[in-house]
Amino acid sequence: MVNVSVLGATGYAGYELVRLLAQHPRVEIKNLVSKNFAGKKISDIYPSLAGVCDILCTELDIDTIKETSDIVFCALPHGASKEVIPKLYDLGLKIIDFSGDYRYKDKNVYEAWYNEPHSSPELLEKSVYGLCELHRGEIKNSSLVGNPGCYPTCSILTLAPLVKEGLIDLKSIIIDAKSGVSGAGRVSDLSYSFCELTTKAYKVATHRHTSEIEQELSILADYPITLSFTPHLIPVNRGIYATCYANLNKKVTSSELLNLYRNFYKNEYFIRVKDTVPELKNVVGSNFVDISLAVDERLNRVIAVGALDNLIKGAAGQAVQNMNIMFGFDEKSGLETPAYYI
Amino acid sequence: MVNVSVLGATGYAGYELVRLLAQHPRVEIKNLVSKNFAGKKISDIYPSLAGVCDILCTELDIDTIKETSDIVFCALPHGASKEVIPKLYDLGLKIIDFSGDYRYKDKNVYEAWYNEPHSSPELLEKSVYGLCELHRGEIKNSSLVGNPGCYPTCSILTLAPLVKEGLIDLKSIIIDAKSGVSGAGRVSDLSYSFCELTTKAYKVATHRHTSEIEQELSILADYPITLSFTPHLIPVNRGIYATCYANLNKKVTSSELLNLYRNFYKNEYFIRVKDTVPELKNVVGSNFVDISLAVDERLNRVIAVGALDNLIKGAAGQAVQNMNIMFGFDEKSGLETPAYYI
Amino acid sequence: MVNVSVLGATGYAGYELVRLLAQHPRVEIKNLVSKNFAGKKISDIYPSLAGVCDILCTELDIDTIKETSDIVFCALPHGASKEVIPKLYDLGLKIIDFSGDYRYKDKNVYEAWYNEPHSSPELLEKSVYGLCELHRGEIKNSSLVGNPGCYPTCSILTLAPLVKEGLIDLKSIIIDAKSGVSGAGRVSDLSYSFCELTTKAYKVATHRHTSEIEQELSILADYPITLSFTPHLIPVNRGIYATCYANLNKKVTSSELLNLYRNFYKNEYFIRVKDTVPELKNVVGSNFVDISLAVDERLNRVIAVGALDNLIKGAAGQAVQNMNIMFGFDEKSGLETPAYYI
Amino acid sequence: MVNVSVLGATGYAGYELVRLLAQHPRVEIKNLVSKNFAGKKISDIYPSLAGVCDILCTELDIDTIKETSDIVFCALPHGASKEVIPKLYDLGLKIIDFSGDYRYKDKNVYEAWYNEPHSSPELLEKSVYGLCELHRGEIKNSSLVGNPGCYPTCSILTLAPLVKEGLIDLKSIIIDAKSGVSGAGRVSDLSYSFCELTTKAYKVATHRHTSEIEQELSILADYPITLSFTPHLIPVNRGIYATCYANLNKKVTSSELLNLYRNFYKNEYFIRVKDTVPELKNVVGSNFVDISLAVDERLNRVIAVGALDNLIKGAAGQAVQNMNIMFGFDEKSGLETPAYYI
Repeated sequence: MVNVSVLGATGYAGYELVRLLAQHPRVEIKNLVSKNFAGKKISDIYPSLAGVCDILCTELDIDTIKETSDIVFCALPHGASKEVIPKLYDLGLKIIDFSGDYRYKDKNVYEAWYNEPHSSPELLEKSVYGLCELHRGEIKNSSLVGNPGCYPTCSILTLAPLVKEGLIDLKSIIIDAKSGVSGAGRVSDLSYSFCELTTKAYKVATHRHTSEIEQELSILADYPITLSFTPHLIPVNRGIYATCYANLNKKVTSSELLNLYRNFYKNEYFIRVKDTVPELKNVVGSNFVDISLAVDERLNRVIAVGALDNLIKGAAGQAVQNMNIMFGFDEKSGLETPAYYI
Repeated sequence: MVNVSVLGATGYAGYELVRLLAQHPRVEIKNLVSKNFAGKKISDIYPSLAGVCDILCTELDIDTIKETSDIVFCALPHGASKEVIPKLYDLGLKIIDFSGDYRYKDKNVYEAWYNEPHSSPELLEKSVYGLCELHRGEIKNSSLVGNPGCYPTCSILTLAPLVKEGLIDLKSIIIDAKSGVSGAGRVSDLSYSFCELTTKAYKVATHRHTSEIEQELSILADYPITLSFTPHLIPVNRGIYATCYANLNKKVTSSELLNLYRNFYKNEYFIRVKDTVPELKNVVGSNFVDISLAVDERLNRVIAVGALDNLIKGAAGQAVQNMNIMFGFDEKSGLETPAYYI
Repeated sequence: MVNVSVLGATGYAGYELVRLLAQHPRVEIKNLVSKNFAGKKISDIYPSLAGVCDILCTELDIDTIKETSDIVFCALPHGASKEVIPKLYDLGLKIIDFSGDYRYKDKNVYEAWYNEPHSSPELLEKSVYGLCELHRGEIKNSSLVGNPGCYPTCSILTLAPLVKEGLIDLKSIIIDAKSGVSGAGRVSDLSYSFCELTTKAYKVATHRHTSEIEQELSILADYPITLSFTPHLIPVNRGIYATCYANLNKKVTSSELLNLYRNFYKNEYFIRVKDTVPELKNVVGSNFVDISLAVDERLNRVIAVGALDNLIKGAAGQAVQNMNIMFGFDEKSGLETPAYYI
Repeated sequence: MVNVSVLGATGYAGYELVRLLAQHPRVEIKNLVSKNFAGKKISDIYPSLAGVCDILCTELDIDTIKETSDIVFCALPHGASKEVIPKLYDLGLKIIDFSGDYRYKDKNVYEAWYNEPHSSPELLEKSVYGLCELHRGEIKNSSLVGNPGCYPTCSILTLAPLVKEGLIDLKSIIIDAKSGVSGAGRVSDLSYSFCELTTKAYKVATHRHTSEIEQELSILADYPITLSFTPHLIPVNRGIYATCYANLNKKVTSSELLNLYRNFYKNEYFIRVKDTVPELKNVVGSNFVDISLAVDERLNRVIAVGALDNLIKGAAGQAVQNMNIMFGFDEKSGLETPAYYI
C-alpha cells in the first residue's frame, strides 16, 4: 500500500482525487489537509463521501505529512503551494502538484504568463510535466510532477501526432476549447451561479494555458510554436472539448491521419482514436480521452477534436495515473470506471 | 402615460419588472433606484437591456420619487423597504411592494413567521393582498398593495375553488411545491452555484409562505386553516409547480371539479384550467397560470396542480397586473407575451 | 468468479448494469443479449464502454445462456421477459428480473394495475421482492428475484420505519416523487426530447408503482394500505427524490424519529439517515439512499424525504446488490463508487 | 394591418414566428398551415399559446392563401417548399422563405451543397438574401426573400466589417460555432433526447451553411472566399455563439477594430458592438446580435465573437424584420422584447 496525503482536499480537484483514491486498491489515504475546513470530516463538506471516506481534515503539518506519507498530492490554491512544495521536496517526498508552478521548463515563460516571479525556479529542472502519455519515462524517475492543466491535456494530446510528424504549418494552429463549469473550481462568484451562468468565451488570447500548450507542442516539433487558444464556458458540470485547426503541409486524407493517430497512441489505454466525432458523454466520469479528426480537402486543413473529463484526465485522474507510473502500478489502477454516459 | 419608479431595480424581480415595464404601452419609467449600482446604467448590470432601457440607476431620493412618479414599485430587500414605504404612503403615492411586509391582515401572524416586530402595523389595514384574481375590487381602490409571494400565488389559485366551495377537509391540505432557482434572488451563495445546485426540499415545515397561503385560504373558507407546505429547489431557472393534495368531503369526479374550476375562473384571462396536467414550459415567460386536477377515487382525494413563472405571475408580472387594475388599464396590458415553450 | 448474462443489455438499466458488472471483481460477463443490436459490440452502442467492455451483443439463445451462466439479469422490455423467465427458471438458473412481473405476492394486484393476465402466476410464490434491506434473508435463498422499481425502492425505504413501528395514520400517506428523465428508458419520444422536456406531474393517481409501494408497506404494517403516489418528471438525467407525508399517531419529535430510523437501518451500509435534508447530488452515481425527516408539530405530521439514483439503487445497483446476497459476496462488492457530486 | 399566412406553422421556427406575429401591432394572422396538424388549434400543439393564439391549423390551399394574405411565411420542411413557392410567387404574393432554396445567387453552389438540382433556378435572380443589415435596400423592393440560416446570420454579421474593409487574409477564416438544440428542429430522434444529448461537433467540414457564409462574405470582399466552419451542439435550448478567427493584414488594435465595427453598424438597432465578450443570456429571447472582438497581437490574428438567438434573429425574428422592411414598418415593430437573461 502507498500512503498518500492530499493538500487542498476540499476544492473540486481535491474532492475528485479523494473520490478516486478512496477506491484505489493500492492506496491508503493518510492526511487530508484543508485550511478552511480543518476539524471537519471530508464527508461533512462533501456528504456524497459519507460511509466511503470520513477522514478528518487537518491543518497543514509538514512533520506529520513527512512521517506518514509516501506521496503528496498538492491541490492548493495558486500561491499557497509555492511555500510548501520546496519543503516537501527537500524532505524527499514524492509530489504531484496541481498548480501551474512546476509545469514549465523556462521560468521566463512562467513569469510572463503568471505575472509574478517564480518562487523556486531551481526546482523546474527537477520537475516533470506530468502528461503521462508523452512523458512516461521521466515521470517514472521523478519526485516532482507538475500535473498538467485540463485544457492543455486535451489540446496537446489532440494535436501531438500532427505536430510530431511535421504534418502541419506550425503558425496556423488554432484551438477553440469548451469547458464544463467545474473547471473554475468551487466558487461562489455570481457569474457562476445557476441563473447567471451562460455560454461565452473568456480570456480571449490571454489564457495561461496557452503557454503550457505552446511549450509542449514546441518540444514535440522541436521548433518554437505560438498559437491561438480560446476557452469557452458551456453549461455542463464537467468536460473539456477541444476543436483544433491547422493547415496541412501536404495532401493527406482523414483516414491516413486516423491511422497515424492510431499508431501514435497504439499502446495507450486511455486514448481512444475514433472514426466518428467525440462526444462529451462518452468520456465524462472516466479517465479516457476520445480523439478524432477530419481533413477539409477544399482548404487542406485538418480539424482534430478531443474530449475528456476536466476533473479526471484533466486533473485528479491524471494525477492518479502519474502516481501509478511513479510506483510501478498498473496505470489503469483505480481508474477503470467508464464514463457515466447518462 | 403613468410615471413609474422602481426601488430595488437590480435584483431579479426588479430586473424582470424593468423588462416588462420597458415594453408597457402606457408606462414611462422615471427612476430606477439601486443602492449597489447607483451611477451605473441598468443595461450595464443587465446587458440584455442595452438599447431597450439604458436608464441610470440612482440612490434613493424620496423627493425626486415623489415629484416624478405616479406609482412606485418597491422590490427592495427585506428590511430596506420598511423605512421607505410609510414615507411614500404618507406622500400619497401608489405603492406596490414585493416584500412580505404588507401581505398580512394580522401583524401577529407576520411577527410569528418573520421573527421580528412589524415596523408599520398601522398600514396593514390600508394595504391589500395583491392576488389580482381574488382581490381585484380592493386593489382597484387601494394605494398600497402587498404583491404576493410566488409560491402563495400558485398554491392559492390552485386550491381556491375547492376551499371556497367547501369541498375538502380543511385539515388535510398538503402542498408540495417545486421552484426554479431564480426564486432565491440574485445570489452568489455556493449552494446556488452551477456545479453545486441540486434537487432538494428546503425549509421543510418552516417556510414563511405557509402563513401567507393559510391566511388567504382561511379567508376563502371563512375558517382557520393550517396546512403543510414543502418547497423544493429543482434545476430550472424559472417556474413554480405546486402539487396540492386534499381529502374530499364528498364523492365528486375529476370532470365535475374541472367544471367548477372553469366556472370559478371563467372571467380570468391569465388562469387556464386544463384537462391535462400543467407543464412548466407552457407558462414560463408569461403571466399565465395553468391549473388542472385529478380525483383519486380509491382514496377520495383530489390532487390539484398549478404552474406559473415565479418572476412574472409570481412577482413582476402580477405587480404590473396590479398596476393595470389600479389605473384602470386593460389587465393584459404589457403582459401579452406567451411562454417561450422552447 | 460468477458467470453472468444480461438480457436486454442495451436499455438504460441494461447499460448501467453492464457498466457496474464490468468493474465487479467477482463477475465475468458471458452474454449480452439484445434483439435490436445483435451482432454489434456493446461499445458500439455505448461508446463510453470502449476499452472497458467490448463484448458482442447476441440474439437470445436459451441453450447458450444455460451452459455459460450462473445467473441471468433480465432487463427486457415488459412483455418480452415473460416468455423467457419461466424457461430460465425451469433450467435452474438464478434470475434477477427488472420487470414488474415478479414483484407481486398477489396476481390480482398485478393484473389490476397492469391490465393484463399474469403469464406465470405459479412463479409468484417462488419469487422474492428484491428490496435488499427488507428481504435479505429470502433473497439469499431464492432463485428468482423481482428487482424493485425505482420509485418503490425510494418510497418504501423512506417510509418503512414509520410504518413498521405503527407511528402513522395508515390512511394518510402521500408520496410526492420527482424523477430524473432516464427513468423513462432509452426513448426517442418527442416529449423526452431536449427542447420539449419539462417539469410536470404524470400518471396522477394511476402509476403502477403505487401498487408495489402499497404491497410492501402493507406487509410491514400487517394491514392493507392504500396511498397517494404522484410521480413528477424534472430536468435531470438521474435521481429519485421522494417527499412523503403522513399524520402521526402520537406526539414525537424529529430527533426521536431520526433515532428510530438510525436504529432501524443501523446495519445497512447503503442507507444513510441524515440530520439535514437529502440532496440528489449526494447519491447520484452511487448505490446510496439518503433519508431524513421533519415533524411539523403544528399539524402533528411527519415529512420524510428520501433520495437515490434511479439507475443504480433504483435498478442496476440493487440488482448487483441482490446478486451479491445470492452468492454470499460482500454486499458492497462492485458498488463502492460514491456519488459524482459534481 | 398586414394579412399574414404561415406555412409550416408547427415546427420550431413556425411556432416562434406565430409567437412573434401574435404580438405584432400591424399584423393579422390569417392562415396557419400544417400538414401534420390540420384540424387542430395551434394552441393544442403548443399549449403555451392558449388564449393568445387559438387559430385552427389547416391543409395548404393556395386559393385561400392568395385571397386572404398579403404575405406568406414559408417554414415548410426542405422539399415541401419548392413546389409551393413558385406558385405563390406567380400569384403576386410577397414571400419570406425559411429554407435554403432562395438564399443563393448561383444555382451551382446550391446544387453542390444540397446534392440535388434546384427546382426553380429562374427565381434565384428575383430572390434576395434576407440578411436585413446587409441587404435592406433589395429586401424593400423584393417579393421573395430567402431568410438566412441561423449560423450564417451570426457568422456573416460577426465578420462583415473585417471582410468589407479588407483587413484580413481571406484564406485564413475559421468559424467555430456553437448552437442550441432547437436548431435541429422539432425532432424525436434519440440523439436529441434529454438523456442522450451531449456536447459535440457535427458535420465537420461539410455543413451546408458554409456555402451561405462563403457567398455573402465573398460579395463583401468582392473576392471568392472559402473558409472553415465547424458547428457544435451544446446543451442549451436556444442560441448561436460564433467564434471567428482570421489573420490580420496589418497591425491594428482591438480598440481600432471595435471603432470600425461601431461605425459599420452605427445605424443598426439590433447589432450591439460590445467592449466585452458576448454572452448568450444577453441575446436569447431577443432579436439582438451581440458582437465583440480581440486582437491577439502575438499572432496578429483577430478573434471576433458573435451571439444571437437562433429562433429569433436566426429565423423567425429576422423574418419579421424582413416583413417590416418590405412593408415600410418600423424595423423594430413586434421585435422589442429584450432577452430573458434569467
